[in-house]
Amino acid sequence: MALIAPSRRIRRTPFSEGVEAAGVKGYTVYNHMLLPTVFASVEEDYHHLKSAVQLWDVACERQVEIRGPDASRLMQMLTPRNLSGMEAGRCFYVPIVDETGGMLNDPVALKLGEDRWWISIADSDLLLWVKGVVYGLRLDVLVDEPDVSPLAVQGPRSDALIEKVFGTEAAALRFFRFARFPFMGHDLLIARSGYSKQGGFEIYVEAGDRDVAMPLWNALLEAGAEFDIRAGCPNLIERIEGGLLSYGNDMTRENTPHECGLGRFCDTHSAIGCIGRDALLRVAIEGPIRQIRPIEIAGDRVPGCDRLWPLMAGETRVGRVSSAIWSPDHGTNVAIGMVRMTHWDPGTQLRVETSEGPRDAMVRGKFWN
Amino acid sequence: MALIAPSRRIRRTPFSEGVEAAGVKGYTVYNHMLLPTVFASVEEDYHHLKSAVQLWDVACERQVEIRGPDASRLMQMLTPRNLSGMEAGRCFYVPIVDETGGMLNDPVALKLGEDRWWISIADSDLLLWVKGVVYGLRLDVLVDEPDVSPLAVQGPRSDALIEKVFGTEAAALRFFRFARFPFMGHDLLIARSGYSKQGGFEIYVEAGDRDVAMPLWNALLEAGAEFDIRAGCPNLIERIEGGLLSYGNDMTRENTPHECGLGRFCDTHSAIGCIGRDALLRVAIEGPIRQIRPIEIAGDRVPGCDRLWPLMAGETRVGRVSSAIWSPDHGTNVAIGMVRMTHWDPGTQLRVETSEGPRDAMVRGKFWN
Repeated sequence: MALIAPSRRIRRTPFSEGVEAAGVKGYTVYNHMLLPTVFASVEEDYHHLKSAVQLWDVACERQVEIRGPDASRLMQMLTPRNLSGMEAGRCFYVPIVDETGGMLNDPVALKLGEDRWWISIADSDLLLWVKGVVYGLRLDVLVDEPDVSPLAVQGPRSDALIEKVFGTEAAALRFFRFARFPFMGHDLLIARSGYSKQGGFEIYVEAGDRDVAMPLWNALLEAGAEFDIRAGCPNLIERIEGGLLSYGNDMTRENTPHECGLGRFCDTHSAIGCIGRDALLRVAIEGPIRQIRPIEIAGDRVPGCDRLWPLMAGETRVGRVSSAIWSPDHGTNVAIGMVRMTHWDPGTQLRVETSEGPRDAMVRGKFWN
Repeated sequence: MALIAPSRRIRRTPFSEGVEAAGVKGYTVYNHMLLPTVFASVEEDYHHLKSAVQLWDVACERQVEIRGPDASRLMQMLTPRNLSGMEAGRCFYVPIVDETGGMLNDPVALKLGEDRWWISIADSDLLLWVKGVVYGLRLDVLVDEPDVSPLAVQGPRSDALIEKVFGTEAAALRFFRFARFPFMGHDLLIARSGYSKQGGFEIYVEAGDRDVAMPLWNALLEAGAEFDIRAGCPNLIERIEGGLLSYGNDMTRENTPHECGLGRFCDTHSAIGCIGRDALLRVAIEGPIRQIRPIEIAGDRVPGCDRLWPLMAGETRVGRVSSAIWSPDHGTNVAIGMVRMTHWDPGTQLRVETSEGPRDAMVRGKFWN
């Protein structure tokens, strides 16, 4: 790890002050914004996330807002997932692809109303794609990045904390549903969602709520004391164990959703008008020739995976690993790879060329959690 | 400064190995890629850049490649600068705006041929805007991010080094011209350009040249020993002194080119077909109501400028500072601000609210170098 230089281009968030006070030790940059990566240590954060409750500054999950008469039509153009039955108040995970079927982002879409959507994006300037398409097709919508900063509450004790602060109705939200709940005179949008497998919520702090951003952070920390709350962040170990993909790490514009194991979110026949449909039709029928797989890497702790590591069968390259780390709970190195179909069956023995030399590796059938 | 976590999403470059061997001490993230920010110290790097020659890994200046029958037409749509007289072999600085006239990027365009262009981008996924527009308008072009990694040679002794390694013809290149020159059996595209005011060149290392990337780095370091060459990087002090703007720092989508002092690159009447023309017509005639200005900040060293600092006239906010640092050569804090027309005249005394308290500030007529 090296130091990251301060600049306005790498944006702070409404919660940065809280993150700093909590002793953040590392960052990454995500959508031109600071995203914490470690507080105590990646392993301590991990054990704590799996047993208690954490507060995450995920303001970097920026929103692309789409408003206007063509909003729903545009949303369906953007993703091969069929949105026709989607009601307001729901979140949908929507792969977004270009005209070749290549992944541009894998966000969560929130339907605020028939003519208003938010797309809560992964790390690419999806706004520019949407604006370009809208310009070219002269659609009747407004597209913008409003100043909305999600704050996540994640971990098994999230429900107890949300109930304490926002009441039973908030804690009763079903998965991927959202509604508004009052806090200090503001109606905050809260969804049951988040980038972990430990359960939790995301609170969308809008521009008009900015004066309650730090009060909210502090109120949650205070109310969470009895649940052993800490500041935290998306945890690399937990996300790999849970098979949560990361755009830019595990997939890029080079990959189709099917290669990423996201074929179940592609309704290529019924998502009428979606961009990339022609390109995806054949792969939807025949399936991809390479796909994301959980990979177990033998030996002690692997180095940080800061580049693609080739997966080899003898002298043949049959795939690559894009994320990897030691899992204390499973006593092995857990990893996410993409493997050619000739070698993707569970139990297949491969070799991975890490940046510090080769290791034995095995394709697994399922992620760990 | 905090530590930056390793991940494939923050891409390494073909020169990362050389950068690490040279003892890089800090990075930023630019176009999802590592960009070094300091080697010895920002001040030592600065003195050295102004007196010798440096090798910069600017692979993060990614290229958007446009190829095909509609390439030149598309390029003219993308920028309000008139490209009709531009010949192949030339570089043009081209503000790129959206339909509202808001800056999306401020890249350098290279015209490789009538139907082939590179856009050497600042920090935003311009590729997505271009792809979106092309999709919507069904233009007959291919748009992609080829794997091209610029390596910059910057500093007053750049000419001597380039002449030694590539010959007199390369050193005779005029400003913003490029041509190809042989190196170890590869024809490398070299331009006289770069993100400093100290003179120099940028060598575009393409995918097919990747095996000579580190040999090139090493050859330049070796040949440059007699010119006191060092590994370096864009230097914050030098760029502010020279008035080199940084997209995401000094300007964003909220700003028109005219606000950024880039009106001279906007040929709003003759750049037929450019996106944003309608929005910019009035501002082109009347001028902007706020504009980029050099700002001198009194007192000793200012803290790192990692957020906008308000510029105040009494109790009225009249602008903001977006980049600031201590200049050893000028014995003052140099800064880039944007100021309302009521207060932008040279000599105007203002107050800047830095993150560590207020300071006296003064609007200057010109940048320092």
